[in-house]
Amino acid sequence: MEEIVSLQNAKVKKWTGLHHKKERDASGLFLVEGEHLIGEALHAGCVEAIITDTKCPYDFASIYQVTPAIMHKLSENISEVHLIAVCHKFEQEPREFKRVILLDGVQDPGNLGTLVRTAVSFSFDAVYCSEDTCDLYNDKAIRSTQGALFHIPFFRRNLKDVMTELKKDGFVVIATSLEQSHTMAEIPSSSQMAFIFGNEGQGVHPELQAAADDRLRIDMHGFESLNVAVAGGIVMYTYRG
Amino acid sequence: MEEIVSLQNAKVKKWTGLHHKKERDASGLFLVEGEHLIGEALHAGCVEAIITDTKCPYDFASIYQVTPAIMHKLSENISEVHLIAVCHKFEQEPREFKRVILLDGVQDPGNLGTLVRTAVSFSFDAVYCSEDTCDLYNDKAIRSTQGALFHIPFFRRNLKDVMTELKKDGFVVIATSLEQSHTMAEIPSSSQMAFIFGNEGQGVHPELQAAADDRLRIDMHGFESLNVAVAGGIVMYTYRG
Repeated sequence: MEEIVSLQNAKVKKWTGLHHKKERDASGLFLVEGEHLIGEALHAGCVEAIITDTKCPYDFASIYQVTPAIMHKLSENISEVHLIAVCHKFEQEPREFKRVILLDGVQDPGNLGTLVRTAVSFSFDAVYCSEDTCDLYNDKAIRSTQGALFHIPFFRRNLKDVMTELKKDGFVVIATSLEQSHTMAEIPSSSQMAFIFGNEGQGVHPELQAAADDRLRIDMHGFESLNVAVAGGIVMYTYRG
Repeated sequence: MEEIVSLQNAKVKKWTGLHHKKERDASGLFLVEGEHLIGEALHAGCVEAIITDTKCPYDFASIYQVTPAIMHKLSENISEVHLIAVCHKFEQEPREFKRVILLDGVQDPGNLGTLVRTAVSFSFDAVYCSEDTCDLYNDKAIRSTQGALFHIPFFRRNLKDVMTELKKDGFVVIATSLEQSHTMAEIPSSSQMAFIFGNEGQGVHPELQAAADDRLRIDMHGFESLNVAVAGGIVMYTYRG
């Protein structure tokens, strides 16, 4: 255990930098807060260090005892946090490969995290996101996953390339779209399916829609406005693995 | 049109007070930001005044021309906002009365707003929330509704009382619950249905679960963790009006 009391400590500065995507991308590290999420991260084996201003409940090699002021600086939450883990990003391989989602430019970290959480709950095998989708490793997105990010392979890729590969592997690739689309009742389940969800305002890019095998809409009347995480939930439930 | 240039102006102070639930409750007023939401509010006939620091696109009796500094003070968004409407809360009566949701202690304004948005999209007739559910008229909740709050009756009530009334009216009242519950495939649709969704951490209170006609769970494997707005979306889609 190492003790740190200065806000100017180099490690504290490095960790605080992880609040920014640029630093997370450069270092491959990210922070998770709170016991539940840290438990999941430990289980996944991706914890580098644990930082605490109280008694650490874990038996772990690398523990930093810090002051409440440092904790306050490191935490991105309003309520008091007493445990933060520094984690490294890691690549997981899909165990099975039957149900995947593709996220095309989702902007809200809460939506992204919720989609990942839902994907795990309905036994999906992987999440692919486009390069312009928001970062999964920001605090809001991580919290919204409720730890699900440690349970599913997550890739940031060019989705056109991903679609080509999935189709070659025998996947039926379905884009969500309000126009020129079929309801879910009209689209049968098949053994390997991929679903594309789009940006909150713009939906799925037209070129991805055009390259998909089919287009799907959720049957509704009148208002016709669903949050992307809710739409994703309904589709993943309907075609759950 | 009235011009206001001072941040100390009494109206500016009153409007800024509407960022707080206490003032919204006391005055019956709330703020909405941005063209889309203001359009919906005008259509619903609940706008008292429009505040702008640019040219107002609406022909409206009560317009206040303010400085960008005042606008900045009134807005709760990071991005620039040029139009804010002061609205009054209003009671809508359900047109039909076949599908309703009850929200028992939902804490996150984004979840509350999203549930209201989904309810409108699936033709639900009313939303009842418990007294300890978060406020629908805060900025985040309003934005999450995408304007749906102007399209559905919304009541803050004791849910036990509401359940008694609904049952008397012939409703089947169903609580969501992971335990001692039936899957949706086991619960047939009926003409009048009410669904209770609970707090993000605690779920539906045991006494409401006990008073319900049935308990429903969403079929899933492994992780078994859904955001309440996603769960609500799946249930409302399945039993849509």
